[in-house]
Amino acid sequence: VRAAIGIDVGGTKLLACAVDERGRVLSEAYEASPQHRDGLIDALETVTIAVLADLSDAVELIGVGLGLPGLVDRDGVLHETANLHAIDETTIAAELEPRVLAACESTLRVEGRPSIIAENDATCAAAGELAFGEASGIPDAAVITLGTGIGGGLIADGRIVFGGQGFAGEVGHMVVVADGEPCGCGGRGCWEQYASGSAIARFAREAIAAGGLAGVVGEDGTVRAEHVVAAARAGDREAVALLDTASRYLAIGLSNLAEILDPTVFVISGGLSDAEDVFLTPAIAHFGAQRRGAGPRAVEVRRASLGSRAGAIGAGALAFGLLR
Amino acid sequence: VRAAIGIDVGGTKLLACAVDERGRVLSEAYEASPQHRDGLIDALETVTIAVLADLSDAVELIGVGLGLPGLVDRDGVLHETANLHAIDETTIAAELEPRVLAACESTLRVEGRPSIIAENDATCAAAGELAFGEASGIPDAAVITLGTGIGGGLIADGRIVFGGQGFAGEVGHMVVVADGEPCGCGGRGCWEQYASGSAIARFAREAIAAGGLAGVVGEDGTVRAEHVVAAARAGDREAVALLDTASRYLAIGLSNLAEILDPTVFVISGGLSDAEDVFLTPAIAHFGAQRRGAGPRAVEVRRASLGSRAGAIGAGALAFGLLR
Repeated sequence: VRAAIGIDVGGTKLLACAVDERGRVLSEAYEASPQHRDGLIDALETVTIAVLADLSDAVELIGVGLGLPGLVDRDGVLHETANLHAIDETTIAAELEPRVLAACESTLRVEGRPSIIAENDATCAAAGELAFGEASGIPDAAVITLGTGIGGGLIADGRIVFGGQGFAGEVGHMVVVADGEPCGCGGRGCWEQYASGSAIARFAREAIAAGGLAGVVGEDGTVRAEHVVAAARAGDREAVALLDTASRYLAIGLSNLAEILDPTVFVISGGLSDAEDVFLTPAIAHFGAQRRGAGPRAVEVRRASLGSRAGAIGAGALAFGLLR
Repeated sequence: VRAAIGIDVGGTKLLACAVDERGRVLSEAYEASPQHRDGLIDALETVTIAVLADLSDAVELIGVGLGLPGLVDRDGVLHETANLHAIDETTIAAELEPRVLAACESTLRVEGRPSIIAENDATCAAAGELAFGEASGIPDAAVITLGTGIGGGLIADGRIVFGGQGFAGEVGHMVVVADGEPCGCGGRGCWEQYASGSAIARFAREAIAAGGLAGVVGEDGTVRAEHVVAAARAGDREAVALLDTASRYLAIGLSNLAEILDPTVFVISGGLSDAEDVFLTPAIAHFGAQRRGAGPRAVEVRRASLGSRAGAIGAGALAFGLLR
């Protein structure tokens, strides 16, 4: 069996999966994410050894893919890490390479030299869905990850769109409200300020400050999107209306991407994709209504199917050289 | 010499160019655009014969490309023609094929069977710049055509982005002002309502109605973008401010495309690209200011170089099978 290892490098944990060419997970392992650079390189080696240990000797390792939380340029240098400043501006794949290769060679049969590649984590999660999940076999598709922010992975004619510098797919920073809400990127009116989990939480805090949304608050006193989703499911009309507003902005961004890229399928992943009933379904209705005048275009919206392993599986898919 | 014929099918005229594989124009011919279907097919045959007549016998014809004013799906069916309803919903390339082949065979040496393809005219104009103009040799680029509306052609990793149904690049209908100005597409707040020639004319009419922009009007009593550009060049401060507003919206849309696609170069074409001093240069300044927080990304903005022949030359490039 030919296999690749994909490692999703998150701010709090590392998840490594060994996958075959059809995306089946052969083994997996976790490590906590150390917050300093040398510790992180050690942990990446440890998790690689752990995932290799569970593989049979008959496995031929093709490569290792890293999904990193930041912009990864075409030379593999990591920029703008949001949650893992320990590895900012490093060529982590190159630094890790000799140690991973040594780990592989001491553990199982390696034919040739397994390649080590690094890509943005949202791109990897998208690659997982594109290669093996809900967008598998769809030549023109987009994976939109709805979490604290909004990330994206785009595929055109069967290949991932990386962009000139490797930074394509930053769809959350598409402006949909000129001169709108300030964004952490320095711009104003970005999509992720209106249709992400943090946007829903902000809308809720604004409503609470204005005397509404009574009872929409977590046990620890914070207000998060999940509390709004729970309230909407319990029948709170204000929460339903608030999610409807956010879902309309979600639909505007999807419509923009449809005009620009004409995908056949949108796959929605990330924590908010679980809120299908009170958020995704209204968004799909708004999307259809907005696009009524758009003639022959047709786009399907689907929920992601790989869950929290999408990033690791997708990093493995890219290590196989798929979607390029 | 291997050659292809590209025909730019406009609402008022047909322009045919025979080009070689380096984009050099070997011959060209014009015809008026008849407003009925059979007349149009006749005129396309006539202009093809005319452009073939000026070629030497040594030319080997590879194919014919048509740039059509509407959405062309992947089966070559034309939808939503804005200015040439005579050919709406027809597979014009297929219908034209036997007559063009007969014209070619009676005129010059044809080896094999020249292919006939049809694409959206904005895609063809972009293909011209991408294959032989200002974006030539740039693997990740976008051509933005600023005229009455805003059209686009996108290239990712050296290939045109067509989209699942062939409708990609409709960048003018990206929403940049949620709930903004109504657009002919049925949506609201589309980019082309804020940064196109017709948007500038609308801003000017609004300013005139409010008692401003004295003297910004054409000899026939109409107000068009060119009048605002002329007034700004003559030092009219209101006209300068109005174009600055439109240029800021132009920059917002360019920034959105940069986040989504990460092109290395934007090429600006169309009538408004001539207004470099009072429109493009301010837009480039706004674009840079908006993207200051965007870290390592860098995009260059260039003016198109092929002018009014871009569509015909690009249709020829696509007929050669370039950029696919």
